Amino acid sequence: MDATALSEFGRRDWETDTDLEPVRFAMIGLGWWTREEAIPATEQSDRCETTVVVSGDHDKAEDVAEASERAETAITYDEFHDGAATDEYDAVYVATPNAKHLEFVVSAAEFGKAVLCEKPMEATPERARRIVEACEDEVPLMVAYRMHTEPAVRRARELVAEGAIGDPMLVHGSMSQDLLEIFSNPDQWRLDPDLSGPGASVMDLGIYPLNTARFVLDADRVGVSALARSEGEAFSNVPDEVATFEVRFDDGTLAACSASQHANRSSHLKVVGTDGEVSIEPAFFDRQNRKFELEVGGTRAELDYEQVDQMLEEFDYFAHQIRTDREIHPDGRHGLADIEAMHAVYESAERGSVVSVSGDD
Amino acid sequence: MDATALSEFGRRDWETDTDLEPVRFAMIGLGWWTREEAIPATEQSDRCETTVVVSGDHDKAEDVAEASERAETAITYDEFHDGAATDEYDAVYVATPNAKHLEFVVSAAEFGKAVLCEKPMEATPERARRIVEACEDEVPLMVAYRMHTEPAVRRARELVAEGAIGDPMLVHGSMSQDLLEIFSNPDQWRLDPDLSGPGASVMDLGIYPLNTARFVLDADRVGVSALARSEGEAFSNVPDEVATFEVRFDDGTLAACSASQHANRSSHLKVVGTDGEVSIEPAFFDRQNRKFELEVGGTRAELDYEQVDQMLEEFDYFAHQIRTDREIHPDGRHGLADIEAMHAVYESAERGSVVSVSGDD
Repeated sequence: MDATALSEFGRRDWETDTDLEPVRFAMIGLGWWTREEAIPATEQSDRCETTVVVSGDHDKAEDVAEASERAETAITYDEFHDGAATDEYDAVYVATPNAKHLEFVVSAAEFGKAVLCEKPMEATPERARRIVEACEDEVPLMVAYRMHTEPAVRRARELVAEGAIGDPMLVHGSMSQDLLEIFSNPDQWRLDPDLSGPGASVMDLGIYPLNTARFVLDADRVGVSALARSEGEAFSNVPDEVATFEVRFDDGTLAACSASQHANRSSHLKVVGTDGEVSIEPAFFDRQNRKFELEVGGTRAELDYEQVDQMLEEFDYFAHQIRTDREIHPDGRHGLADIEAMHAVYESAERGSVVSVSGDD
Repeated sequence: MDATALSEFGRRDWETDTDLEPVRFAMIGLGWWTREEAIPATEQSDRCETTVVVSGDHDKAEDVAEASERAETAITYDEFHDGAATDEYDAVYVATPNAKHLEFVVSAAEFGKAVLCEKPMEATPERARRIVEACEDEVPLMVAYRMHTEPAVRRARELVAEGAIGDPMLVHGSMSQDLLEIFSNPDQWRLDPDLSGPGASVMDLGIYPLNTARFVLDADRVGVSALARSEGEAFSNVPDEVATFEVRFDDGTLAACSASQHANRSSHLKVVGTDGEVSIEPAFFDRQNRKFELEVGGTRAELDYEQVDQMLEEFDYFAHQIRTDREIHPDGRHGLADIEAMHAVYESAERGSVVSVSGDD
């Protein structure tokens, strides 16, 4: 056991500069996640601040600005698109329903603003591609996968890259929650294909095991197969009250994954290699302490650590890369690859066949 | 917390009679599992004894008889089929390579002997069906799924049946090991389709999550989808050095499973329901202590218990049911259902499409 490995576990391995001018954000879409997770993260941060809040509802925007520490400007979606307050923010955080991301990213790119766009990037591959095109060579674009700056996930990725578990063979990943217990109103956008995309569970939750496996393996998905089922009335417009899906990666690793918006809150990620395995459980919800386990050659180490504020890590990383003119990951093409894979998952579940996914990410 | 739940955890809920005449076994196929697990279990048992040992190699049979406590008769496969020593045993334990099970079961049934047949029941559905036909209405037949008499698995099944975790939605299951580290000779029957059946990992290991999920859910599999890959030279005759597979059950539950004969020794089973989840990890290897976890409504209980001798439980259960003229589970039709499902898994992996499995179990 090397104590350095423990003290450095939560280290920001990406951080080279600490004395940088803060990035001022316009927060677009003021749902609970933005209000309770994103804005508080910028208030905790030395690198970020929320200066503008944007909502479809002017009064709501005013209320959120009022409740925030620094946001002084509250504008509507229309005002945002018209270019209101562009001198008051440097970047946007887009956290609207999936199918609304594109329009805000396009406007932000026109205004020359850096974009931090929530996952999934959009509702369809076509629209996700338009986001990539709108930003590429114009403004920095990052997809808000909070797992990429989560210390346990970054450590798992390092261990896999070092060959600590041998050649990766299998990934197990899952994320489930009881959506209707969290939001008692079944009339919500995650269950509406016009706003969410082709489904509710894979698009919103299945993306975690899918994307985190890609990140930890540093491999790309080339084929998927899936089963899905919806029986509950609230899920009548989406095919995936519950879903399982398999992923074939270009390095040969196979993944067995699942997602459900109507099941016990649960998540795990395990990568099994020829010589060992690494697992994180619970894996994907924020504000949960993790159990990180590494087994090599039959010897097992278990690590408990205090969870970081994932949104603070994500916002700080984004701001750091912008202010130091560095490349940003996960970028738009990385996000697009997940949208393509998830559409293939829905197609596979509908057609009852394995679907290839192009590897052009 | 109810202390009764702890003290009764390992209880043999099937046991009604203790003063029964022992069942005398002919052990057929004297590989390491029979020598190191099955025969010692009968030596521990008050209900069973090994009186006859049967091998293709007469000298090997003699050696095993010599080393055993009670076996006095060593015969060859040919002698067995010719009816040698039939007055010295009441039942047979068949632990030959998969594709040899049928011939021994047919002879045993002709002699009127009860049959405990190792899993998987045979190499193909056709041959498994012939085993069912040979025994049905003639002699008791049990398939040797040691998970069915494992206390943690039985408790999980009870909890699911009681509705403790709500409606089951998802199952996660996996079993992997490094076959060539265990048996350094790559020229072995598990990698030979003529002896093993269509593959190596799903047939030998994948059957554990598949069958245990069926047992815990008390549901039947109605469709499967699978991905498989073999790259290593030792696996050139089988398609599944590594495999993932999904199972749709007739109660609507979906399972995401995997198996590999070339990966870290690892296994888990988790059933996630609408109100909670139950998990066992490690789940499937013998002589491993289990961690049994139950979570309901966000409250989590973890149970450590001393593992039972799984083969002793299995042999004692089989003998108990025979001596009390009770029905035996898992029976031949139950075993056949897995062979059908696993063949569908291989068919799905080859065809790249979801394959339906008849539910006539």
